[in-house]
Amino acid sequence: MATYTATVTVRLKRGVLDPEAETTQQALERLGFELSDLRSADRFELDLDAADADEAADRAGEMAERLLANPTIHDYDVAVAER
Amino acid sequence: MATYTATVTVRLKRGVLDPEAETTQQALERLGFELSDLRSADRFELDLDAADADEAADRAGEMAERLLANPTIHDYDVAVAER
Repeated sequence: MATYTATVTVRLKRGVLDPEAETTQQALERLGFELSDLRSADRFELDLDAADADEAADRAGEMAERLLANPTIHDYDVAVAER
Repeated sequence: MATYTATVTVRLKRGVLDPEAETTQQALERLGFELSDLRSADRFELDLDAADADEAADRAGEMAERLLANPTIHDYDVAVAER
């Protein structure tokens, strides 16, 4: 067994309204910054023991499906690195 | 000028309590998952026009300093890719 860090990035699916991102973009523009778009995402870094990187990725994917992401409105991706 | 996507990842400094992460970890453990630690971070993907990648990174860093991150409790990093 080894310890891995699985990074799960959860973002809204394209087409789903992102009021937080819109508000943040407007605030930046009021501060004088120019940007054409802003998207926000949540990121979870999970430390877990697993037999190999694939098992760590599978387990992190299950955690995303069960809790971290809402499959109706979110997409997510998983990246794994050995600690 | 070219269009770049600057990804700003904002996370709490080590030692700063992260109640959201703790609550999420406990919920995952109640679902039967085993993990030794969980850290959460906010991620902002900014599309902006710039002369080069360095200028895009500088501008994204300024946005982080002014609005996206609170320097007292947050660390942040910036990654830039051409769109």
